Order: sequence, then structure tokens, then C-alpha cells
Amino acid sequence: MSRFEHPVGDALMARAERVIPGGIYGHQSPSFLVEGIFPRFLSRSRGCRVWDPDGHEYVDFLCAYGPMVLGYLDPVVEAAAEEQRRQCDSGNVPPPNMVELAEKLVAITVGMDWAMFAKNGSDVCTWALAVARHATGRDVVVMAQGTYHGVHGWCNSFGRGFPAADRANIASFVWNDVGSLEHAFAQNDGRVAGVIVTPFRHEAMHDQEMPAPGFLQAVRDLCTRHGSVMIVDDVRAGFRLHIGGSTQRWSVTPDMLVYSKAVANGYPLAVMMGRDSLRDAARAVFVTGTFFTQAVPIAAAIATVAEIEKRGAIARMERAGQRLCDGLIERARGYGLEVTISGPPAIPFMSFVADAGGFDRNRLFAGEAAANGAFFHPHHNWFVSAAHEDADIDAGLAAAEAGFAAVARKFGKDRA
Amino acid sequence: MSRFEHPVGDALMARAERVIPGGIYGHQSPSFLVEGIFPRFLSRSRGCRVWDPDGHEYVDFLCAYGPMVLGYLDPVVEAAAEEQRRQCDSGNVPPPNMVELAEKLVAITVGMDWAMFAKNGSDVCTWALAVARHATGRDVVVMAQGTYHGVHGWCNSFGRGFPAADRANIASFVWNDVGSLEHAFAQNDGRVAGVIVTPFRHEAMHDQEMPAPGFLQAVRDLCTRHGSVMIVDDVRAGFRLHIGGSTQRWSVTPDMLVYSKAVANGYPLAVMMGRDSLRDAARAVFVTGTFFTQAVPIAAAIATVAEIEKRGAIARMERAGQRLCDGLIERARGYGLEVTISGPPAIPFMSFVADAGGFDRNRLFAGEAAANGAFFHPHHNWFVSAAHEDADIDAGLAAAEAGFAAVARKFGKDRA
Repeated sequence: MSRFEHPVGDALMARAERVIPGGIYGHQSPSFLVEGIFPRFLSRSRGCRVWDPDGHEYVDFLCAYGPMVLGYLDPVVEAAAEEQRRQCDSGNVPPPNMVELAEKLVAITVGMDWAMFAKNGSDVCTWALAVARHATGRDVVVMAQGTYHGVHGWCNSFGRGFPAADRANIASFVWNDVGSLEHAFAQNDGRVAGVIVTPFRHEAMHDQEMPAPGFLQAVRDLCTRHGSVMIVDDVRAGFRLHIGGSTQRWSVTPDMLVYSKAVANGYPLAVMMGRDSLRDAARAVFVTGTFFTQAVPIAAAIATVAEIEKRGAIARMERAGQRLCDGLIERARGYGLEVTISGPPAIPFMSFVADAGGFDRNRLFAGEAAANGAFFHPHHNWFVSAAHEDADIDAGLAAAEAGFAAVARKFGKDRA
Repeated sequence: MSRFEHPVGDALMARAERVIPGGIYGHQSPSFLVEGIFPRFLSRSRGCRVWDPDGHEYVDFLCAYGPMVLGYLDPVVEAAAEEQRRQCDSGNVPPPNMVELAEKLVAITVGMDWAMFAKNGSDVCTWALAVARHATGRDVVVMAQGTYHGVHGWCNSFGRGFPAADRANIASFVWNDVGSLEHAFAQNDGRVAGVIVTPFRHEAMHDQEMPAPGFLQAVRDLCTRHGSVMIVDDVRAGFRLHIGGSTQRWSVTPDMLVYSKAVANGYPLAVMMGRDSLRDAARAVFVTGTFFTQAVPIAAAIATVAEIEKRGAIARMERAGQRLCDGLIERARGYGLEVTISGPPAIPFMSFVADAGGFDRNRLFAGEAAANGAFFHPHHNWFVSAAHEDADIDAGLAAAEAGFAAVARKFGKDRA
């Protein structure tokens, strides 16, 4: 069976289309990948490898869109989760280990004095806005144009189904453009509750963009000057750049910080953290959910954070990501192709210079790479895990080579 | 050690207060129970019993606020979850069993043609509103005054931190008052996207209220007449009244239905379901989350639904709940006290007639019952599970008796 063939996956998709709108929805939609080549379903995962129901194996560079920071089914995390599972999980009141996780996160996260837990990145981004609004008595929140902060009405990228009123108190600025942020403050003078910002620009369908020198500090200074709350949305980047919060890479400390994805190595958990000055507001805002303090994801998070430290996982991911990025540039050159690598090495993205903001070459590349056993997303940043060894990176690069060859064949070389 | 003493819990709480605003937040906050008597933490659970970190055991009548429909750590559900866990959980694309669960839910849920998955009840309630709005091209949603549909801005009970604009398109009616719903339609003529309603009235700090004869049918008819979407929020009641959706008890079929809590016996999962006519809108609205299609909660849900059917769990819970309610009335009478039992037997609530809408007697009762080994919530409806055997109900009633005795001692009898 060719790697392009997915009879089991095709049959599943046909069934899915009958009972699920679109068959598969949201960020996992087949149209967000390359239809006809990528698997629509995955049925097994271990370390940095995933398998589809037709038996094809892939070196994974998406890590379930971020969560798998130590790799799938990490034995230490799973043992901690299982031990907790035998005691309790969902309950009437929280489990004792909620306190332990809050203490651990407060101890390692620079400038943050408290923590609270939820399930989704969307939950904690919205919650952070509510805390900032209650603390300041102001309504306006400023976000970077186009940034993904989840799917709630105030930030839903497509907006369909959400009334305009949901976005009535959202102002925007342009990433890395301090003047545009100053303008947003001026336009909403005395009304800005907070600014929410990611550590670097990482929305889908774009090259990533690191903060320009001084940019995050300028956000910090403007928030301080205007009495507004600086919120870092570290849902996507958290625990891959710095154990104390991603913006510590640039020595900038926000007033609030939200995590999800990688904090529990695939178990569903989100975290909101903040400074002491916001403690009363966080207490006053009523946000809750039946599963917010589940003990098993919390146990997984305690183990994940400890293992990230113990294994030097952040340095390992940076090194593995750098090996990947260097190898991609080199192999692309071998086919006469110029690529742009963007973002930090542990959360890289690659595009083709000749695509000039389009993704035709990316789709061909990613499809061919998938057919040769590596899962590179054509439209969304990638993730490296601490389970990626040199041999896994090299296996990914070998699959990538097939992608470069296909691009050179179809589109020609960028240079001789 | 007395059952009122919680040295381990007290020490945990002191630590929690330093690193979590309020120590414990949301619906699990100690102030929502009876401070000084109820445990603030629970560290073990099995079947219908829970244990606090100080070693006190309780017969549980809260079921983690609903999820534990088969009981904590049900062996069949756990075996299914573990089998799936060894294969995959969070992933780049969905697991095959997502299709299986959607098929199963569509097969058993009356009138519903498709299903989608999320993590929180709040997620799917908000999502249902978005689908109704996109499908109708209208903005207004009508809800019953005071009903709990989660914590998003449009329905957050306290509102703190959420701008008024979040509620700009919400109209309301009075539960069981058809005239008030007709009035809401008239006031928003041609602008009502949908009506969201629970199967019965079950918000906290109130006696519950079943739908008056014809009430749910009147909601159905008004929605049909005005081209509005009828949404049933079955997050709390789902899988305890009827396997085909709770409003089937009254032979009423909505256009959309949302579940969470009990669907996966404690694993975090939420479900949105709808009719064929809403399929395109559901596909068009962009809502997603990293953990929405996790395979393990889905496996748990497949097993949970199958076991509910196989064990006749809904009938068992009704019978167990009826035994509890009958026993409470009888024992209260023995102390000369009159109580009001409200809601369906599987999701009952009890208040004291003499409290006249207050909860002083309820707090004393629930505190004494907790001190004697049963977990009855003083302000929020209770839940029975299929793990509650007659002996467990009777153990709960024995603990309740201590509560009635205390109420009679402090407040006196209602009658000789």
C-alpha cells in the first residue's frame, strides 16, 4: 500500500461526515493540512512518532499542536497520572495536589504570585481579560491584529456566529509596532484594562515573527504608565522557551500569564497566573468548570514540569529544533531552494521564499514529507519535543528531502 | 479525631490561600458549602464513597457535581480508558473513536443528527448560541432568568469582569411562564436566534422546579413558529433522566442539545448535538480547542453510555433517588420537620419549609450530615449514581438523621 493510500482512514472519514458537521472540525480539519495525503485520523502515538489507522508511521513535528513537550505517553508522566488516578480525579472539592501544582508554578514562574486552573487556552485567555477588567474598572482590551487567543467571541478569527457586541471592547495594534500600540492607548485614553500579547507572533498562515529588540519592554512600559494589565498568552509557547515564562527570554515580566497545551504533556489543563496586585480581582471574578480541578491532569502537570527541569528539556528542544532548522536550510539549498525559517528553534516554521506569502510550495512540501513519513504542518508552526533525538530529526530531514525534491521538480529551482 | 476536625485539610487550605486567590475558587469554594465542617479537599473516591485527606469517609450525594453517573473509578469505564490510553490520547488529528462516539450518540439521541465535542459545559452552551445565530442570521438569544448556563460573559451569574456588551443580545423569560416567553419573542420580533432552556429548573440557591404541563412543548412551538432554534442545555441533567435526551421525559425534541458532566463518567468531555438543518451552520462556526478530541475521554464516554444502557442505570438511579427522597421525608417527619423535595429523584434537592427560601436549616442539616458521613450539598441540587445501592442510601439517611436532629434541636419542630 502506498503512503498516499488510506483505505481505513477514508472509510472512517465517510462515516464521520454523516455524524459530524464537516466530518472533522476546527484546527484538525483536513483542509488545514493537505487533503488526499495527510492522514485524517491518528490511532497510535509514542515518543515523537505517530501512526495512522492504515499503519503509516510519521516522525511528528506537531506534537498534538503543542502539548507533547516530553513526547507521547512519557513513562514518568503516565506513572504519576496512574498513581493519582487510583486515588481520585474529578471531585466535589479539589484534590490536595492542586495546591502542590500552584506552589510549584508560583515558585518557578517569574513575578507570578498565584495560579488557578481550567481546561482550555480559550478559558484562561478570556478569564485573564475579565480579571484585568474587574481590577481596573475599565473595559477595553488591546490585542495584536490577527493573533490567535482562542475561539471566544472577542477573539474568534472568523467571527461567524458571534455578535459584533462581543468585540465591542477590543482594540488592536500591529505586532512589533510600538507606535500602533501607543495609538491604541491614545484612542482609548483611560479606558484600557489590559494588553494581551503572545511572546512572539505565531499565528497560522504566516511566517512567525520574534519580538523586535525592546518591543516587549515597550508593551510592559506602556501598561505600567497607563495602569493597564499586561497579559502574556503563553498557551502555545509555554514550557518550550523558558521555565519561568516565555517572555523571560527577553527579561520582561507581565502582570498575568496564561498557560495550557504543554503544561501537562497532553492531559487537558490550562493555567492562569498573576501578580499579588490582581489577587482580589481574580477572586472576585466568577469562573469555574466541572473539570477545572481534576486531579489526574494536575498530577501529570506536576510530573511534566519536574521532568522538563530534570531533563533540561528546554535546552534539548532548542538543540533538536536547531538541528532541524539547519538541516532544512541545507537540504533546501541542495535543491536550489530558498526557505525562511521563522520563530524559535523549539517552535519553528518554514516557508518558501518564492511562495511570497502563499503556501503552494509548503503544501507540496508537507504532503510529500508526510508521504515519506514526517508530519510537518503546511500552514501552522511546528513543535519539537524533548523526545526528539538526533536520529528522529535526521529521519524527519530525510522525509523533508522528498518534499524539497518535489518542490524543485514542480516549481523549479530558485537559483542554480 | 472528631469528624469536624481536619488538621490535614486545614494545613492544605493555609497553603492554598497563599498561592491561589481565595485558596479554592468557583463552585468548589468552601463558602458554597458549610465552612468549618465540610472537607475543603477530597483525596480518594470509589463507587459512591469519597474520603478527605484526614481520613473521613462520606457517602457522596454530589457525584463531583454530576459527572459520576456510574460511580467513581468504575472498572468498565476505567478499563476502556486504559486500553485507549495505551494507543493515543491528544493528537494532531482526531482518533478513530471520535467517529464511533458520534455515531452512538446520534443513534440514541432523539432527533439529533450530528455531534461535536469540547471540554466544558460552558464551551458547548456558547457554541450552540453561535450556531443558532449563524443559522438564523439573528443575534438575540432568550434564556430563563437566573439559569446557570456556565461562566461565559453572556450568562455569567455574577457578571464581574464581563462588559455589559457581552449580554447585549440576551433576553430573558421566567421559567414555566409561557406568557413571559411570548413577551420576549414579541419584544424582539424577528430577531430571536434561539431559546436556551434546561429540562427542568435547577439553579443553585433555589428549590428545583419541574416543567409545568405543556411548558416545554410551548417553548418548542414558539421556537418553531418564530423560526428560532430550541437549544436544550442538558449539561447537568443529561444521562440521568432519559438516554435519548432529558426532555424526552416530556416528549419534546429540541433543535440542539448540549451535554457534558455525566457523558464520560468523570473524564472531561462536552458534546454539542443538532438537527440536520443546523449542520451547515455548525460547520461554518469556528470553534475548537487543543484537547477537544482527546481519545481517552471519548473512550470513557463510549463505555459510559454503553454501561448506562446495559445496567439500566437511569432506572436504578431513579429508584435509588426515590428511596433517598422518601427516606428523607419520613425521617424529617420523625423530628417534626417538614421538608420540600424538588426535582427528579435522580437529581434531587431538599430544603426546609420553615426556611422559607433561606438556607439556615439546610446549612445546619448538611453540616451535621457531613460530620456523620454523608455529603449533601446545602445550596445546590444533589446527584445519585448507579453505584448507590440500598445500603448506601440507608447509610446516607442515617447521617441525614443526625442533621434533622440538629435542626429540630436548634430551630424547634414545625409541628408536634
